Amino acid sequence: MKTVSGGVCAAKGFRANGIHCGIRKNKEKKDLSLIVSDVPAATAAVYTTNLVQGAPIAVNKRHLKNGVSRGVVCNSGIANTCAAGGEELAEEMARCAAEALGVDEKDMLVASTGVIGPSLSMEPIRAGMPALVAGLSENGSESAARGIMTTDTRVKEVAVEFTLGDKVCRIGGIAKGSGMIHPNMATMLVFITTDAAISSAMLQKALSGDVKSTFNMLSIDGDTSTNDMVVVMANGRALNRPILRDGADFRMFMQALNTVTVALCRRIAADGEGATKLLECVVSGGSEPAVAKAVAKSVICSSLLKAAMFGADANWGRVLCAIGYAGVPVDVKKIDVAFRSDAGTVEVCKNGAGIEFSEEEAKKILLRDEIEILVSLNDGDAAATAWGCDLTYDYVKINGDYRT
Amino acid sequence: MKTVSGGVCAAKGFRANGIHCGIRKNKEKKDLSLIVSDVPAATAAVYTTNLVQGAPIAVNKRHLKNGVSRGVVCNSGIANTCAAGGEELAEEMARCAAEALGVDEKDMLVASTGVIGPSLSMEPIRAGMPALVAGLSENGSESAARGIMTTDTRVKEVAVEFTLGDKVCRIGGIAKGSGMIHPNMATMLVFITTDAAISSAMLQKALSGDVKSTFNMLSIDGDTSTNDMVVVMANGRALNRPILRDGADFRMFMQALNTVTVALCRRIAADGEGATKLLECVVSGGSEPAVAKAVAKSVICSSLLKAAMFGADANWGRVLCAIGYAGVPVDVKKIDVAFRSDAGTVEVCKNGAGIEFSEEEAKKILLRDEIEILVSLNDGDAAATAWGCDLTYDYVKINGDYRT
Repeated sequence: MKTVSGGVCAAKGFRANGIHCGIRKNKEKKDLSLIVSDVPAATAAVYTTNLVQGAPIAVNKRHLKNGVSRGVVCNSGIANTCAAGGEELAEEMARCAAEALGVDEKDMLVASTGVIGPSLSMEPIRAGMPALVAGLSENGSESAARGIMTTDTRVKEVAVEFTLGDKVCRIGGIAKGSGMIHPNMATMLVFITTDAAISSAMLQKALSGDVKSTFNMLSIDGDTSTNDMVVVMANGRALNRPILRDGADFRMFMQALNTVTVALCRRIAADGEGATKLLECVVSGGSEPAVAKAVAKSVICSSLLKAAMFGADANWGRVLCAIGYAGVPVDVKKIDVAFRSDAGTVEVCKNGAGIEFSEEEAKKILLRDEIEILVSLNDGDAAATAWGCDLTYDYVKINGDYRT
Repeated sequence: MKTVSGGVCAAKGFRANGIHCGIRKNKEKKDLSLIVSDVPAATAAVYTTNLVQGAPIAVNKRHLKNGVSRGVVCNSGIANTCAAGGEELAEEMARCAAEALGVDEKDMLVASTGVIGPSLSMEPIRAGMPALVAGLSENGSESAARGIMTTDTRVKEVAVEFTLGDKVCRIGGIAKGSGMIHPNMATMLVFITTDAAISSAMLQKALSGDVKSTFNMLSIDGDTSTNDMVVVMANGRALNRPILRDGADFRMFMQALNTVTVALCRRIAADGEGATKLLECVVSGGSEPAVAKAVAKSVICSSLLKAAMFGADANWGRVLCAIGYAGVPVDVKKIDVAFRSDAGTVEVCKNGAGIEFSEEEAKKILLRDEIEILVSLNDGDAAATAWGCDLTYDYVKINGDYRT
């Protein structure tokens, strides 16, 4: 498997674009994106489990009953959530894109991200649609990725190439993250495309299985968004023998999907609101997978640990504390903890108790921008990884006055 | 019931003191406290449910098997948690205080708060004990309250007077809070004394019942500490007919206890690490108590809402979002939200959707230092209140470099 460029347009038969249409006041900021498959694509999606849900989610559930779509239209700036008549607006957004593309409105998916509460105005979307469609291109992934960004500071796209039988396939995605990131059974906005031929059912199985160890193991701030959504579209243009059941091809596809989703998770975490560091908590030796997962996620979510990492402070007691309240059975006396970065590794806790270590060495390691928190439970074979970021002054600044 | 001064010494027969013994380098900061009852006191306690537990907790569980104690000795600076030989040190601390007081070591309780990991040195404790005991006084509550503070900026003590039969009783407490505050079935360090006569069993029943709606509804940062502990000592010096079962006297006692614990919760929340505002989420109309509680706690724990409150930003979508991921069934379309302070009330959401409101008015209300977030679920009669604070630059500052 190798990494390739092109994001959601890396796979054959996908075009994308993003423009500024006027939902946002800042003309420098794109606010409307479109991803389109040249042919109908098997499509799978997972959504937030928040009871308060963005209006686009209800629309997508209806449109995806047949497991097929042609594309996704997405705006940023306003979340179209908790606003009167939201579903009608989301349907209208799909219709507007479908008409401009000459496809069935039931084949268009919709997504929105931004402030919860205000009504989404259709005027700028309607006015911008011709230019959005005219600009669709096989080089448009970055532009679409920019159109879905909110407080994100970096474009997030990734793609890989792999082989099924004698066919070269590609799968790639774009994502937005940054704040209100603590996905639960679903995630922020992630759009993934592949030219592999795979049935909707197997695609959904692949996605639903994957998110449990990828997006659901990601947390920026503990807030599960109302609009989380991951969509994968597979248009079959790679001409591989279609994946219709479990087997070697499905496992290969899962591996490719996982490579893309893990890379997107890491980029979302590294670009969390205000973040200066990517944190990765790698848990090994768990008595069972659920234990390893709960421990990894509890550590990555600790405000105290996140602040300590910002300060490059090897305050490992906060790691132990977070493991202790993870809500799963662990034997505290068996736990080892170390911090690792490209500057080295420092062991700080052995058998649940502190050990001597060089604070200077630890500081050097923790001053890097990608930190691994290594937790060995020494109680079995289960492992899990969770991703997050440090808690910084800028997180407070960004969220103390987000709406103005 | 009326508020009185005196904290843990308001009730008859209790003396207290706090000194600087040298566990901390800063000589201005007291680090060792003692609370003593002149006679054996019925004692109840609740502790953290974190699997990683401070060494004093195991010692107290042993010492409290008979439901009786004479006092508590508590240090700040080092938590005596995850350090080798911690239980022996905690036992030695109890013994040292017991010897100086001339009481049975099994009648002394122990508590520690501070950094997790380092070993507690007994030298300063042993050296300071004579002065600590010699300084015990009926005016010593504030001094004891200062000795248990870590990043707290304000002394937290409260006491009330009530009547049982024809006897005037008092109950009062001191607390420390500030960081790693998200108690679960127990709490930070809280010491409460009363001169009411009540059996250990009824005292434990009162305390265990009370913490569910008081300390367990408090969160500063979502981190459940390893050393949380609430201890209530009742020495019977008020000479009321002893409370041995449910009934009017027990209800009166519960009410007095609740007055003290709610006041301490509010003070701990208001003095959360870095906090500029006390936040109180008042939920009404829940279909059942568990639903109201989960909603209140989810709102008070949202990092995004906490940052918005710091910025006096009426971003009510974050309230709805937090209700939606609370993990309990609510009908989103029935939810009303308002913000209230002593500057007025502003309704911001009705039936799950935004309504027109004056941003200027909202700003004025949210700029005050005590904010109520009023949530009406309109789905029943259950109510709950949770306490927390805003998320500020100073929280990050304090925790980015706590150990230095």
